[in-house]
Amino acid sequence: SGLVLVKNPHLDSMEEDVLYHLDLGTKTHNLPAMFGDIKFVCVGGSPKRMRAFAQFMQRELGLAGAGEDVADICAGSDRYAMYRTGPVLSISHGMGIPSISIMLHELIKLLHHAKCRDVTIIRIGTSGGLGIEAGSVVITDTAVDSSFQPRFEQVVLGDVVVRSTELDKDLAKELLACSRETPDFPTLIGHTMCTYDFYEGQGRLDGALCSFSREKKLEYLRRAYDAGVRNIEMESTAFAALCGLCGLKGESCHFHLL
Amino acid sequence: SGLVLVKNPHLDSMEEDVLYHLDLGTKTHNLPAMFGDIKFVCVGGSPKRMRAFAQFMQRELGLAGAGEDVADICAGSDRYAMYRTGPVLSISHGMGIPSISIMLHELIKLLHHAKCRDVTIIRIGTSGGLGIEAGSVVITDTAVDSSFQPRFEQVVLGDVVVRSTELDKDLAKELLACSRETPDFPTLIGHTMCTYDFYEGQGRLDGALCSFSREKKLEYLRRAYDAGVRNIEMESTAFAALCGLCGLKGESCHFHLL
Repeated sequence: SGLVLVKNPHLDSMEEDVLYHLDLGTKTHNLPAMFGDIKFVCVGGSPKRMRAFAQFMQRELGLAGAGEDVADICAGSDRYAMYRTGPVLSISHGMGIPSISIMLHELIKLLHHAKCRDVTIIRIGTSGGLGIEAGSVVITDTAVDSSFQPRFEQVVLGDVVVRSTELDKDLAKELLACSRETPDFPTLIGHTMCTYDFYEGQGRLDGALCSFSREKKLEYLRRAYDAGVRNIEMESTAFAALCGLCGLKGESCHFHLL
Repeated sequence: SGLVLVKNPHLDSMEEDVLYHLDLGTKTHNLPAMFGDIKFVCVGGSPKRMRAFAQFMQRELGLAGAGEDVADICAGSDRYAMYRTGPVLSISHGMGIPSISIMLHELIKLLHHAKCRDVTIIRIGTSGGLGIEAGSVVITDTAVDSSFQPRFEQVVLGDVVVRSTELDKDLAKELLACSRETPDFPTLIGHTMCTYDFYEGQGRLDGALCSFSREKKLEYLRRAYDAGVRNIEMESTAFAALCGLCGLKGESCHFHLL
């Protein structure tokens, strides 16, 4: 049916659903009227960048108000920022798996309550590249963990549940085809490694703690490259797992900054 | 010597240290002049709340400018917000372990570069309480993981390193003694459980996914209570581990909202 799935039998019996971190709710807001026609959701870490993206979409889609400021739908909360331009929702998720997970749980319920259909969700983030040119865009085929495995380990009531981190392969190909129109950015499809930590977890030598040598770091990154990893960031496995379970067509694209 | 320790032999040979997510650096800023006399650092998730806390400290300390706005030292970055009032630094860290870890790595290097001495760091956050009165404050003696163990598992180059999550017991007692002056808030010392997820990880029945019954949830929370857990949040194990390793006298206090 193309509807967004929630997999929680308790929700039906709840009188009200407060999407606390988004400052929205089923009793305080008319979610179908506000969001029912949303077809694309783009998410990224930084609130300022997601506002700039909404303004960009406003210009690209030739919408009224282009060039003007866009209103933050979640202004009552300082956890996330959300902007809508036409059928496109632009939301920030902060840094790391726990932060994006809270946002995705509440976003998925929002799309469910709003009765949205055939929604595509794309994470547009920055990442560190592995053996690729600076300024490249990596379109993720599979998100992998720090052992290069395509899995996301979710702790549920103290027990580990393993989830798949496959993303939509057709969407990845479609995005790659789109990229041919913008030859300024070398674009490729590859695995994206997701870590829980920016410094020690990604082999950086400039954190407050570092117990390994440059050689050990390079050896680890070489193994990652050999396993198909082309970039490293901090949200993709949780993103892939949650979108996959809830019937959202999801993709993750990352711009390699330096 | 009371100095903040960095445990990274690579830092000495770096010409410049850019504290990227704080928008500060050793070449662009005179860190000893800006921060050398800092004695207390208070951290919490929400940027607005940490600004309100800085304004509160300004009034409490009777500093000039009380009642006026405070300037965000990290205004050039939208990842974190930082305010200083006298010897007190107030910084936001976002939600979850990965987000607080990035901030702490860069904060610890900042305090090291600024040659700060005898710094006390206190996390002042919100949390869900377990078997305690709403409006209570929990002062953490030990941060525990979702199996109620006092440990933080850090992945370093793909390998798991286990770290201790003890906090400063004397500081906890001192804070408890202070709390007697404000009898409006029942205050207690207990274990704080830290999870990677807000919904499934903390046994909530209102996420987009929920595979367990109310009974299973209560059974898990009862086991947590029996293990000494009095509240649940998402940062304390990483906070305790990093502060402990870097010689920061650290405490974690949480306000149980509802």
